[in-house]
Amino acid sequence: MPRHKGDHDARRRDVSGAVWRVLAAHGFGGLTLRAVATEMGATTGLLTHYFPNKKALVAHALTLLDERRAARPGHAGPDGLAALRATLLDILPRTPQAAADNRIWVSSWDAALADPDLAAGHAARYARARERIRHQVRTAQRLGELPPADPDGVAATIQSFALGLIVQALFSPEEFPPERQTRLLDDFLATLAVEGR
Amino acid sequence: MPRHKGDHDARRRDVSGAVWRVLAAHGFGGLTLRAVATEMGATTGLLTHYFPNKKALVAHALTLLDERRAARPGHAGPDGLAALRATLLDILPRTPQAAADNRIWVSSWDAALADPDLAAGHAARYARARERIRHQVRTAQRLGELPPADPDGVAATIQSFALGLIVQALFSPEEFPPERQTRLLDDFLATLAVEGR
Repeated sequence: MPRHKGDHDARRRDVSGAVWRVLAAHGFGGLTLRAVATEMGATTGLLTHYFPNKKALVAHALTLLDERRAARPGHAGPDGLAALRATLLDILPRTPQAAADNRIWVSSWDAALADPDLAAGHAARYARARERIRHQVRTAQRLGELPPADPDGVAATIQSFALGLIVQALFSPEEFPPERQTRLLDDFLATLAVEGR
Repeated sequence: MPRHKGDHDARRRDVSGAVWRVLAAHGFGGLTLRAVATEMGATTGLLTHYFPNKKALVAHALTLLDERRAARPGHAGPDGLAALRATLLDILPRTPQAAADNRIWVSSWDAALADPDLAAGHAARYARARERIRHQVRTAQRLGELPPADPDGVAATIQSFALGLIVQALFSPEEFPPERQTRLLDDFLATLAVEGR
C-alpha cells in the first residue's frame, strides 16, 4: 500500500511532540523509544518505522524545536539594541513554555557532548545564534547605542550571559523569577552600552 | 571479617574516580553501574556494596568533584577584582583537566533537572558560588575597583557569563581557545569596572 509523504511527515511531527513531552518531564536520561511510544499510545515497532534509533529521534526533535523557535513571530520593533533586548527576552525562561523549551535544550547538552554528530549540530546552532546577535550588535553600534568594541567578542559575551542565566534560572526559579531575569538583562545591556571600555 | 572504615572510604574514592572517567568519556547518558564496574575491573556486585544505585553514585561523584575543586590551592594574590579574575580563570575550561571537569558538570544538568534531590543540590552549589563571587564583588567595590551596583545582581551576572562561556567553549573549543576565553573574561570585567551605570 503506498504511503503518503504528508501522512509520514505528520506522524513524524506527532512523534516529535511526544519526544518533547518526555524530555520536558524526564530529560534525555529518561528518553527511550519505549517512553515515547507510551506517550503516544503507540507501539515501539511503529516508532522505529519512523525513527530507526534514539539518536535519530533526538536529532529530529531538536531540529523541530529549532524550527518552532524560528517560526515565532518576529519583533516588529526597531533594529539595534531594542531588537537585541527583544531577542534575549524571548530566549530567557520567563514563561512556562520558554522554561520547558530551555529545559530540553539544557538536557540535550549531555547527549550532545557524548556524540560527535549531535555536538557538531549544537556547535553550529550556537554559532548561528552568535551570528544573529553579532548582526544586532553591529546595528546598535552604527546607531550609536553600543560603543565600537569587537562585535564578535560582544556577541560571545551576550550569548554567554544568556546561556548562563538560563541554567541558573532553571535550577533556582524562585531566585530568578521573570521580573528579575528582565532586570538582570537590562542592567547587563546598560553596562555594555556605557562608553569607556 | 571486620571492615575498616579507611578501606571503605578509599574504595569509594576509587569508585568516584571511575565514575569521573566514565562521565568524561560518555556523559551521564553512558553512566551505568556496569560501565563503572568495567572501568574499575570490578563486578557490579562489588559496586552495589558501596553504592546501592546509580543516583547514589552520581551524588557522591559530584560531591567529590566539589571537594576536589575546593581543595585546589587558593590564589595568594590580593583580594578584590584580581581575586575574582583568578577564581573565574580557574573555573573556565582553559586546560584539558578543567574542560573534563566542566564537561562532567554540564552533563550532570540533565540528570539533575530530572531529579528533585540532585536539582536541589545543584541549586545550593550555584547559590554558594554566587555568594563567593558576591563577596569578591563587595571587596572590589570597597577598593573602588567596581562601581557600587547591587552586588547580588553583579554576582548573578558574572556567574551567568562564566557558565555560558563554559558551555560555548565545550561545544566549540576551536572558536574558544584558552587565550580567547581569557580575553573575553578580561573585556567583560573591564566593562563591569566602568563607572556610569
